[in-house]
Amino acid sequence: MKKLINDPADYVDEMLDGLCLAHPGLRRVGDDRRAIVHSVAMWPGKVGVVSGGGSGHLPLFTGYVGPGLLDACAIGNVFEGPTINSCQDAIAAADRGAGVLCLFGNYGGDRMNFEMASEFAALEGVETRTVLGTDDIASARPAEGHKRRGVAGLIFAYKAAGAMAEAGGDLDAVASIAQKVVDRTRTIGVALSSCQIPGAAGPNFTIADDEIEFGMGIHGEPGIWRHKIRPADELVDEMIAMLLAERPAGVSRVAVLVNSLGSTPFEELFILYRRAAQQLDAAGLTIVRPLIGPYVTSMEMGGASISLCFLDDEIEGLLAAPADCPFWKVG
Amino acid sequence: MKKLINDPADYVDEMLDGLCLAHPGLRRVGDDRRAIVHSVAMWPGKVGVVSGGGSGHLPLFTGYVGPGLLDACAIGNVFEGPTINSCQDAIAAADRGAGVLCLFGNYGGDRMNFEMASEFAALEGVETRTVLGTDDIASARPAEGHKRRGVAGLIFAYKAAGAMAEAGGDLDAVASIAQKVVDRTRTIGVALSSCQIPGAAGPNFTIADDEIEFGMGIHGEPGIWRHKIRPADELVDEMIAMLLAERPAGVSRVAVLVNSLGSTPFEELFILYRRAAQQLDAAGLTIVRPLIGPYVTSMEMGGASISLCFLDDEIEGLLAAPADCPFWKVG
Repeated sequence: MKKLINDPADYVDEMLDGLCLAHPGLRRVGDDRRAIVHSVAMWPGKVGVVSGGGSGHLPLFTGYVGPGLLDACAIGNVFEGPTINSCQDAIAAADRGAGVLCLFGNYGGDRMNFEMASEFAALEGVETRTVLGTDDIASARPAEGHKRRGVAGLIFAYKAAGAMAEAGGDLDAVASIAQKVVDRTRTIGVALSSCQIPGAAGPNFTIADDEIEFGMGIHGEPGIWRHKIRPADELVDEMIAMLLAERPAGVSRVAVLVNSLGSTPFEELFILYRRAAQQLDAAGLTIVRPLIGPYVTSMEMGGASISLCFLDDEIEGLLAAPADCPFWKVG
Repeated sequence: MKKLINDPADYVDEMLDGLCLAHPGLRRVGDDRRAIVHSVAMWPGKVGVVSGGGSGHLPLFTGYVGPGLLDACAIGNVFEGPTINSCQDAIAAADRGAGVLCLFGNYGGDRMNFEMASEFAALEGVETRTVLGTDDIASARPAEGHKRRGVAGLIFAYKAAGAMAEAGGDLDAVASIAQKVVDRTRTIGVALSSCQIPGAAGPNFTIADDEIEFGMGIHGEPGIWRHKIRPADELVDEMIAMLLAERPAGVSRVAVLVNSLGSTPFEELFILYRRAAQQLDAAGLTIVRPLIGPYVTSMEMGGASISLCFLDDEIEGLLAAPADCPFWKVG
């Protein structure tokens, strides 16, 4: 796989430099400069919202740093969690005396390093809470929802938590809304083609020219089935049915994200969205603020995911609150 | 090449339906519904701004319909110009009695059909002007600039013309600013991998696994050279040098677009932008409002282009004016 890069060892740092040059409101902090913060003044007493994860998923994670979203973000090498130091740097950068929410995907390395960083933060008097994104319904059964991985639906939790913090919510309130959004968000993806970690000898996984894998994770984690490719409408029907099987009682409104995993073009996303909108309408659900595009990718991986966030009035209001980051502007 | 689609014959219509479902401010008009208009009221006497072209380039063309940008857009099949009827529909939808600017890329089919549509519009008393995007410096020498194709830099002309029309400029003023932006905008691209028209037997062109083509057009038109892939910084240096060879005298500020042709990820675009920013700074140019992302694509084609718009105060003001469309929000 060809890439427009220089030395693979410089990939992450050059990417972060470019991101911060293009968005002067962002800057790199910490000894290895692997935490990204925004320069909009946070008022004293505001709860900080922090995330982190591996590189290779832009706009996730660093692209969501900005007012009304993340205050800081720790970033690792490609598909590797951020270091403990970077997590500490992000927490310290987001601390305004009211505590910091650490909101990130449910992956072992990220969990371990944020846990250690939170312990160090506690020694310095900074209180933290942790909420894990667990929206990928392909990664564990509903009864084991806490084992599920976090994927594209995490951005709904960013948005709601960021808005709650801006609105003056305390650490419990910000953690609580993030957990509520996670509890009401579900994602399922389908993979068509692989990606390659810069400098690696070959692709991250292989998949035949006429096959797709349903439910594959964003690092190539195994999915539910692998078969010949099928028409988009059939795939969307299966995806929506699986998502709606976990629809909470009494919900009539949903936020929808139709996300490109990388190389799948906008045209195909709109074809998927068309069918998803038809099926959600048939299920009596009103779509609010649909997002269609590359929001959480795996570099040049082919495929798409559909996320639903089952709304209540509180979540819907927070998703509509003003926010501004390099990849998502609301209001 | 795998695609998340249904019957290839339905590709364009399903994509347009999805676009309009996701963005209720847009709707399809005309007998074959191949013109897209926005629903924000245009005041009587406002000059209309219209574009058009083939499908497969989203966000171009239909994704730039919205207040402060395009009022209407005619859209054809994949990589095929819109029909005369669709061009007529777009012109009619954008007409508020003050004439309509037809602003589109310099391709034979598009030119011919917009010309016919403009003649029909004239019979109905609608005055039009035509301005052609000719920013692709790989497609003809400077002395034959009028033969150059239009590529990603066209969106700067959309933005300036749309702002001038919103500001109350008459048809001459709107056409004049569009032509000035075209005259001051240059683009060069590099292709890494091909795309496939839905339903076609194979890819649109072929390129070896370790090769790139410098200057290739967005439909696979031949470029300047094809060689082994090289480090990103070397490529950017060559691209920026070619662009700056056509820098007008006295210019100190530029708008920059680092554009993905489709599957090239954000990470690589930021690596390219980093080097481009360094080189432009070294050339004494200040970057204004950089755009980095997929703005003009060829479905899943791999590669990137760099566009520079050499600014003056008038253009810079118009680029900063408020605008809102599915893929570009300013102010």
